[in-house]
Order: sequence, then structure tokens, then C-alpha cells
Amino acid sequence: MTLRIGVVGTGMMGQDHVQRLTTSVPNAQVVAVSDVNLEQAKRVGEGVGARVYSDGHDLVGDDQVQAVLIASPGFTHEEFTLACLAADKPVLCEKPLAPTIDACLRVLEAEAARPRRLVQVGFMRRYDADFRAMKDAVVGGQVGRPLLLHCRHRNPSVPPGFTSDMMITDSVVHDIDATRWLIGQEVVAASVFKPRPSSKAPEGLQDPQLVLMETAEGVLIDVESFVSCQFGYDIRYELVGEAGTVSLGELAGVRIRAEGRHQGRIPDDWRERFARAYEDELREWVNGVLEGTVTGPSSWDGYATTAVAEAAVEAQTSGRRTAVELVDRPALYA
Amino acid sequence: MTLRIGVVGTGMMGQDHVQRLTTSVPNAQVVAVSDVNLEQAKRVGEGVGARVYSDGHDLVGDDQVQAVLIASPGFTHEEFTLACLAADKPVLCEKPLAPTIDACLRVLEAEAARPRRLVQVGFMRRYDADFRAMKDAVVGGQVGRPLLLHCRHRNPSVPPGFTSDMMITDSVVHDIDATRWLIGQEVVAASVFKPRPSSKAPEGLQDPQLVLMETAEGVLIDVESFVSCQFGYDIRYELVGEAGTVSLGELAGVRIRAEGRHQGRIPDDWRERFARAYEDELREWVNGVLEGTVTGPSSWDGYATTAVAEAAVEAQTSGRRTAVELVDRPALYA
Amino acid sequence: MTLRIGVVGTGMMGQDHVQRLTTSVPNAQVVAVSDVNLEQAKRVGEGVGARVYSDGHDLVGDDQVQAVLIASPGFTHEEFTLACLAADKPVLCEKPLAPTIDACLRVLEAEAARPRRLVQVGFMRRYDADFRAMKDAVVGGQVGRPLLLHCRHRNPSVPPGFTSDMMITDSVVHDIDATRWLIGQEVVAASVFKPRPSSKAPEGLQDPQLVLMETAEGVLIDVESFVSCQFGYDIRYELVGEAGTVSLGELAGVRIRAEGRHQGRIPDDWRERFARAYEDELREWVNGVLEGTVTGPSSWDGYATTAVAEAAVEAQTSGRRTAVELVDRPALYA
Amino acid sequence: MTLRIGVVGTGMMGQDHVQRLTTSVPNAQVVAVSDVNLEQAKRVGEGVGARVYSDGHDLVGDDQVQAVLIASPGFTHEEFTLACLAADKPVLCEKPLAPTIDACLRVLEAEAARPRRLVQVGFMRRYDADFRAMKDAVVGGQVGRPLLLHCRHRNPSVPPGFTSDMMITDSVVHDIDATRWLIGQEVVAASVFKPRPSSKAPEGLQDPQLVLMETAEGVLIDVESFVSCQFGYDIRYELVGEAGTVSLGELAGVRIRAEGRHQGRIPDDWRERFARAYEDELREWVNGVLEGTVTGPSSWDGYATTAVAEAAVEAQTSGRRTAVELVDRPALYA
Repeated sequence: MTLRIGVVGTGMMGQDHVQRLTTSVPNAQVVAVSDVNLEQAKRVGEGVGARVYSDGHDLVGDDQVQAVLIASPGFTHEEFTLACLAADKPVLCEKPLAPTIDACLRVLEAEAARPRRLVQVGFMRRYDADFRAMKDAVVGGQVGRPLLLHCRHRNPSVPPGFTSDMMITDSVVHDIDATRWLIGQEVVAASVFKPRPSSKAPEGLQDPQLVLMETAEGVLIDVESFVSCQFGYDIRYELVGEAGTVSLGELAGVRIRAEGRHQGRIPDDWRERFARAYEDELREWVNGVLEGTVTGPSSWDGYATTAVAEAAVEAQTSGRRTAVELVDRPALYA
Repeated sequence: MTLRIGVVGTGMMGQDHVQRLTTSVPNAQVVAVSDVNLEQAKRVGEGVGARVYSDGHDLVGDDQVQAVLIASPGFTHEEFTLACLAADKPVLCEKPLAPTIDACLRVLEAEAARPRRLVQVGFMRRYDADFRAMKDAVVGGQVGRPLLLHCRHRNPSVPPGFTSDMMITDSVVHDIDATRWLIGQEVVAASVFKPRPSSKAPEGLQDPQLVLMETAEGVLIDVESFVSCQFGYDIRYELVGEAGTVSLGELAGVRIRAEGRHQGRIPDDWRERFARAYEDELREWVNGVLEGTVTGPSSWDGYATTAVAEAAVEAQTSGRRTAVELVDRPALYA
Repeated sequence: MTLRIGVVGTGMMGQDHVQRLTTSVPNAQVVAVSDVNLEQAKRVGEGVGARVYSDGHDLVGDDQVQAVLIASPGFTHEEFTLACLAADKPVLCEKPLAPTIDACLRVLEAEAARPRRLVQVGFMRRYDADFRAMKDAVVGGQVGRPLLLHCRHRNPSVPPGFTSDMMITDSVVHDIDATRWLIGQEVVAASVFKPRPSSKAPEGLQDPQLVLMETAEGVLIDVESFVSCQFGYDIRYELVGEAGTVSLGELAGVRIRAEGRHQGRIPDDWRERFARAYEDELREWVNGVLEGTVTGPSSWDGYATTAVAEAAVEAQTSGRRTAVELVDRPALYA
Repeated sequence: MTLRIGVVGTGMMGQDHVQRLTTSVPNAQVVAVSDVNLEQAKRVGEGVGARVYSDGHDLVGDDQVQAVLIASPGFTHEEFTLACLAADKPVLCEKPLAPTIDACLRVLEAEAARPRRLVQVGFMRRYDADFRAMKDAVVGGQVGRPLLLHCRHRNPSVPPGFTSDMMITDSVVHDIDATRWLIGQEVVAASVFKPRPSSKAPEGLQDPQLVLMETAEGVLIDVESFVSCQFGYDIRYELVGEAGTVSLGELAGVRIRAEGRHQGRIPDDWRERFARAYEDELREWVNGVLEGTVTGPSSWDGYATTAVAEAAVEAQTSGRRTAVELVDRPALYA
């Protein structure tokens, strides 16, 4: 049994997903791709024998397409996700679910009216072996009740045009979701602190930033977001519980002793670091859809994460702690 | 395009491979299984919709089967591999290629007469990310010309009936192949040293053992083989070159600080430790076969490894350094 | 040449210092001890053949005493330090220099009027090999201009009566000094954030706390202070610069593999963790005094650190960012 | 109470000891030094106000000298140690006790006739914190009954004139003593294996070597001796017991993340690596002598270690396993 998938968006992210679905995910076939850049869509589609569309709505409407993966720019996520809901097709939407709270709410409402979930949001960290082991340790009580969570989120560099609020909405958004998932509580407030910016960061970018968050039951989370750190892609977490701590980010791989140093390499970027997590995300999604279920990060997770990110962006501007207000959680996401 | 595969042998190893081919390897389908234990074969085959045979030769002869994976006991490998060669079907044979030098030579000769390779031997370590990084470091000159290689190969325990020579032929055999591959030289002699045996090892088992090997150009390899080590599955290598060393076996994963200790877990067994290597082995094999090539460990590797293992078993008995004599390498394996 | 030292205060800290001066510090002799608990002072003094006083002022006035080490409770530091200055005797005063800004200023003014320094404050971390290597890396430019500093400061437990503001004045005070020293800038503001307290902390203690500090040039420091962490004494720092990071706190020592885990031990307390630093602090102090110089942490460091601690305590109470105002730095401390 | 010490030999080792005794060891005073190079002895002696001799026997005979530290070349150790015994003065003799078995036996016999020990041999590893923790783990049963011990002993380079047998007698000799001490058994046989030599080693030097040893109860020890390893001074041990392993050599110190790598430094040489062990060796020796006891490595340890080294040198030449024959252990060393 093979799931016939249409991929909306053939930029870098879309291309990576098409490649993975083709070479690393059993029981999946990319049967259609779409992009407003039709030439790009054609190149990608021809490589895997898929139909090609310039309009994602046509792809969603294609009868051959059983499920949809959305990898187009964030501002288009709402319309394509709503189209999938209308067409009754399972959809894996890259993060964010939508860039504004209102847009997220529209998706949430459309899905919440249904008897079962169709939407999954692409928070791939939940599929990483270390993040899963960390959650297992927390849930298993190995470190006691959580009190604090320290997060490091470093990228070597960013493309031109990257802005200070994108550090929240594009980067810290992963830590927001991971925090909610690891601790099992909603984030209720956010603050942003600004050290002097790195002279190696693009002109005008407030980089690094320190984001402080609080959960409903008083767990405190600090996230260092540093997107021009130069030296590599570095994700490290330490969760502090009442009886101990659990941490991830120790770097595996071979060690070399030479020239007076022992050393190991640091990943270049998130694609290398989370390669395996992306694969497992897609495998579990495909297998779930074939069995009629969607169990990954939900529209509610997408909405709540965007709500926290929006509060953090406001805090970044105002310099003040900003509360997060969430609507009631629909029964579908209980 | 999907490769239709028949799996000979439905014991633990065969079941693992059937499972992997079904859930983790794209473009592969298990269309037939066989086992002398027909009931077992039926259970495994029904789970994936495959035809079921009690005789592996019938499976090899099935027109629906395009390629064969042999996971039956070692003494049957020769006959099934020869059958695949006769049927002109690509075959992935679990290690060993065959348990005796003579049997290996018969396979080697049958294949060497052909214009291209059909046989791959299941030395999965060559697909492990750390082993590959180690080889890259060696080939890339990061530690200079190799001089020594230290290997630790520990299993927590072994099943009843495991014998002292099986420690060579079942366990050290992986280190023999890894050594040849990492250093790029044949092993020309082996010795075995015996400390007092562990009281936790099965009665009569010489466990642990220290195997010493020498390559054609004078690299010295020591392998600790300890199959009743109790504490976990522990593989660690350090290759010493003229300018530095490269090592693998640092344990990744989350770390816990609790009760006065910082700690991480050790894998339970080789299935956990090399889960990903097995997947990549199968993926690369399937993709290669679909493209008409076989590039993994060859019949020559299978033969040479068995020859070294046989010398080591002789050394274990005699207590003396035993030379390894290899036939000339056929042009097919140049 | 031997330095004849008087030790004021024979509680645990004073006893440790007497022991160290006697067994681990060459060229030093404890010739006098004092304590309001005269019985305790006698026991300690007799062990090393020292004269015994109930009043520290008598000890300072003893002609045999060439230099003084103050290890009495913090509120007495001012009077004894001032007495040493009046007597023109070098003094090593345990932290804090004094518990209030005003008291520190009185010492500062008394010393600043002199041609050379007599006072050293007992910030022993500056003598720890790892802290020194971290400072060398920063000063040597190995990680670029500092931007952030993350500090973990964990104790397994605290004695009864330990209060939330003592977490700042007794514990974080070390991080305040270390920050100033590592970065080479004064701290200009502090904030305190409070997660839910650990149920394993003494009733009423706000434990853990997260202290945020800013330096004059915009470096941001976060300190996790957690004095009931249960699992051990755990000090870890990571300084983030424009080109990389330098961290300390990797635990050395032997590693044990057993029962499915690889593990190492965590120090029990600060006496174990900083045993060597205390020794080097005393050795360097003794050698310096014998040569006529005092080069360790100064009254200015003691004053500035108390000023930051006082701001942090205020921030802890008010919940607001609190600025630190320092007097002009006297020329003696340029 | 101060111990008045005479130091025989003012080369690098002697100078280091004089420096340590003066600046890092309480209750010790260097009152005399001697060297056949009188100019050198004068320079060293004047620095610490010690009398100067060209003949070590005159130093031993000096009434001011209460105890002697021998740091002259190995071939002179016998005569000076015997002189100390004759003069009834405690002596700390740098390793080896003497370079030949016969010379060691003469010292052993001279001391064994006495009611109590006077001689200690300078195996400083026994004072290293990690070696001690490893022994504690073994003795405490944390890894079960010992079966194997893997040792790495690497120096970046050696001075001109260093020979293949000096790799045993100067370098591996430390591993021989450490093995005996850690396992608590005598070594009864040795073999030496020779990989191709490093092209970076001095012409004609068999470097590296792999030394295999067996203890009386069948524990097997392998020592990699590599004195031209280029990259640093690297000591790593792993002892394998029936229930687990204990290892030392994890490198502590700060870690730097920069330029795509995480890295730490490796010590330059044994003086850096064992600086603290040398200090503790001297402190414990001085304190013991002042209290009338000598408890460190004994003449017996010196003799047994030289006997094993001599067997290993013979094995190196003959290429054969060589048995070690020890005389009966005198009651003094029970």
C-alpha cells in the first residue's frame, strides 16, 4: 500500500521533503508538486515522475493526491491547509501552521468542527532520538518534577534579510514547541533580553537574544537564540528537575587527537543535525495516514506556538514581559 | 520502481530484515520468504503478503523474486549463494559468506568467472556513520599512516551453546572485516591470548580473549572479544596513526545527573547499536541493485575474512601465531 | 622564610584554612587563632601549637602575627579588616568583604588612603585551573568578544535557616565576582526570576532562582542558583563570544561502565570541587605577602560584588530590574 | 617541624623536585644538593640556600641532611641508596630503583635485613587522583574481578639517543608498576610485538611497541608504548572486570567550540600531566618521614618492576614470551 502525496512548494524545504519521500520513506510516492515558480516545480517534479502545478489549490484538488505536504512560504499555509480540510485530505504543514494567531485560529476552527484530525504541523524535533529520550526521562520521573529548562539554539549564519523578529518566528518557534511538548504545559508569558549584538551579525540584527518563558505551572525556560554564531549548528538543552537534570547535545561521532587537541566536529546546519528526525517524521506520518490516523503535532500545537511567538515578538519590541492568552482548547485536541 | 526480494531464513535475523525492508527501505518489497521451519516462515510471510517456501532453492527459482537476501544458518550460505549466481540474481548474504575457506572459494570462483559482481556480504559496520567517519579520517590523512588499531567488542551475554571458536567466527569476524576495510590491507597473521575466563561466562567458554592480528604492511591490531561482559553492548575503536589517533565509541544520547553521578546509557545489543547501519546497508543495496550494480562488501571480503577467522581459531587452539594464506585476488575484485 | 599567620574564626571555614596552611602551604605557620567560642578555638589552636584568643582584635594586635586570615561570620569582617589596616598587616578576608555596601565602602576608603594594598578577598574561583583556562581563552581571543555568559551553580542542599536572599549573598556572590573577572567589566544591573520552588527545598525558600545581570558594555549573564538540587555540587559555565564558546564543568575523573550505564561521579560539595583552588589561593597569597605584594581579589572587588549582590536582593524582593551604582574607583585599584 | 632534605642530582628531574620541595611542600627544606656537574649544582643550590657537593656520598654523609632524594642517572641509584641505608637515612629514589635485577637485589637485601623500611621508589602515578580512584573502584568491587587491562602510554617525542629498550626501561616501567599496584598481583611473563615503526620516530627506533604481560593469576595486560606520537602526552587506562570496566584518561579542562569543532587540549608532557601527583608524592613522603614511616612504593616494587622490564627487554630482542622469575619476598615487604 502506497500513499500518494502532493507537495506544495518546491523551494529548498520542499525539495528536501520530495527527496526524502522518494529515497528514505517506504510506502510513499510523490505524485504531484506545485510552485508559483513553475520552472522550479517542473525540474523537481520531473525528477520523480510527478505532475506539476503552478497553483497549490489545483494540486490539492487532484484526485490522485491522497495527502498533502505543505512546504510553501508561511503566509500561504493557512489557505492550503484550509483547502485540504475542505477536500478531506490529510496534510502535513511545515511550521508555522500560520504566521498570525488569527490565521491559526481559522484553521483550528475549521478542523475542530470535524470528528477527527487531518492536520499535522512540522515540528520535527519531536521525532529526534535525543529529544524523545529527554521526554522519556522527564515523563519517567528520572529527574523529578521540572523546574527550569535551558535551551541553546545556534546557527552559524543567516541569509540576507533575516530580521530580529524572524529569530523568534523562524528559529525560537522550535524551542517553544519543544518546551510545551517536553514539559507538557502551555507557555503563559514571554520576555526578551538583548545583549550587545555580535559584530559578525548582519547590520541591524539583534543577535543574540535571550528569550525567557514561563509555563502555566511556573516552569521557567531560557532560550539563547544566536543565528550568527559562526562556529556551527549547536542545539543543547538541559532540563532541571527536583531530583536531577537531563541534557542533550553532547556531540557524538568520532574523536580525533592531533596537534595537542582532542576534537570532534559540530554539525553544519539543521539539515544535518535533524536529518534522521525529518525521516522519522515523514515515516510515521505516512504510516499513520495509511492507517487512518494523524498523531503528530496538531493544529492546537501550531496555534499555541504561534501565540507564544507573537507574544515574544511583542516583548522584543516593548521590552516588557508579555502574557500569552489562549482560547479554550477544543475537545478534538484533548 | 520496486525491487522484489526473497528472504531465505526467517529466524531473528531474517525477521529483522523482513521488517526493515517493509517499514524502513523504500523501493523494496518482500515477495517471498523461506525456512525449513515452515510454520515460522508462514507467520513471517503472511505479515507482509509474501509467498512462503520451505526450501530456499524454490524461493531462488521463483520468477517473481528479483534479488535474494540470505539470513539462514551459516552452513547453508554456500548453496544458496551458488544458486543465486546460477540464477543470475543479486544476493545479499549475511556474514559469513561461508564458514570454511573451501566453501568461500567455491563461491568466489563461481562469481569470479562472471563479468560483474552479484554477491554482497552483510558486514553492516561499513554502513555505520561512525565507522564511515573513521575511515574518512584515515583516508583523508587526518591521523597519518596507520600503525595500530585497538578494538573492543563486548556483548552482555551469549546464548547457551556458544563456544570459544564462535567468539572468533561469529563475533571477531566483524572486527576482521572492519580492520581490512579501515586500513585497506589484508590481514596476514593472527594470534590469540587468553586471560583467566570470567566466572560469569558459561562454563568452559574462554571469555574474554585477546586477538592480535598483523596486516601485510605491518599494522598491528588487537581485539578484545568479551561476550559475557554483563554491562551492555560496547564497541570502541581507536586507530593510531603517525600523527594522531581517531576513535569511535563515545556514547551519544542524553545525559542524566542524579544521585551523585552523571550518566548515560549503553546499548543493550548489536541490534540497537547498529539499527541505522542495517537500514542504510539495505537501502544502498536495494538502490544499487535497481541501478544494476553491487558495491558493498564482496565475496572476496567474505573469503578473506573467513580465512583470517580460520587462522585465528587455529591459533586459539595451538597457542601460536598462525599465518593467513590467501589465493590470488581475481580481477573482478580489483 | 615563613609567614606567621593569625586566623580569626575557627568554624568549618577557619578550620579548613588552618589545616591547609599547616599541611599544604609551604612557608606558612599558623601562630594564633581566635574565636568567640573559646573552647573551639583552643581545640583548633592546640592542634597546631598556636596561641588562642577569644577576641580577634587581640589576635590582630599580637606582635607575633604578621598576617591575618579572617574566617569569622560576615558581619564581623569589617571591624577585623579595619583593625588589620590600622595595624598595617596584610589580611585575607573570606567573602564577603562585608555584607553591606556601606561597610565595604568604609574598608575601601581606609585602604584607598594608603600607598599600597593590604586586603585580599577570598574569591577562590580565580585560582581554579578551569576558571583560569577559561579566562585565558577569553583574553586570548579564542572565542571572540564576549556576548553572553551562562552559569550553573548548584548545591545538593543547605543547612536550616538558609534564606532566599542568602542564595544571592552567599552563593551567587561567587558568580558575580567570577563574571566581573572573566569579562573584565562591572555589572550594572540585576534582575531575579523565580520558577516554582522545588518541593525538596526547605519550606519557604525560593529555590531555584534565575539571576540575570548586565555588564557596562552590554554582556548578558544568567545564573541558575539552585541550592537544593539533591544530586551533587555542580558548577558549569559557558561563555559565548562572537566566534565561539568556551565552557567549563565537564567532569573529569574515572568512568565506570556497569549495569547498562557509563558513569562518573559528581563532587559532593564546594570543598571537594575547589580544594585545589583554595590551596593555590593560600600559596599565592603567602608567597606574595612574603615578597611584599598583595595581588588577589581586592577591596574594590569585594565592594563591587557586594553592591551587585545588594541590587540583586532588592530585585528579588521588588521583582524589578535594579541598577547598580558604584562610587568612582580609587586610584589604588586602577 | 621541618624535614631537612638533600637532593642528589640537579638535572631537570632534580631541579623540578627542588622547586616543588621549596614552593609546594610544607615542612620540607632542601639543605643540600649535589651533582657531578658542580656548576649546575651551585646554581640550583644557591637558589634555595643549600649546601653544594659534587659527590653525592658527601651529601648523604652531611649531618644536616635528614633524608635524601635521589634524582641522579639510574646507574648511580644503587650506590647512593645503599649509602643512605648505611647512614640510616630515609631515601626517596627516582625510578628505577636500579637498572639491573642484580643491583636491585643488593638494595633489597641491604634493606630487608633491617627492622623497618627506609627506601621509597618514585612511582608517582600511585599518587595521581585518577589512578587512585581507579584502584579504589577495583578494590571496592565496582567492576568485579579484573580480567584485562589496556594501557596507552604516549609521548609526543623523545630526545636524541633514546633507544628501543629504553622505551621499556624508562617509559613502560611506569605501566609495569601501575599494573602490579592496580591489580595487586605480580607480573609473571612479558611479550613484545612490533608494528611497522612510525616514520616520525628517530631512525632505528622501534616505535610504537605493544607490550603484553600476564599476572600470576592470569590477568592479561596490553601496553601501547608510543614515544613519538606527535600530538601530546596521552595516558589512558581501561581495566576490564567481570562486571564492568573502569577507565581513566578522559581529558578534563575547558572546552572550546569554534570553527566547526568542539575541542580540548592534551597535556604537553608528563610534567604537566602528573604535576599534582609529584606534589602529593613528596608531601606524603615528607609527612611520613617526619612521623617515622615510609609507606610508598618499596624496594620490592622497584625490584619486581625492574625484573619485569628486564624480561620485556629480552622479549623485545628474542621475539618470544619471556617468563619473570622473582626471589621470595622478604618479610619486611609482606
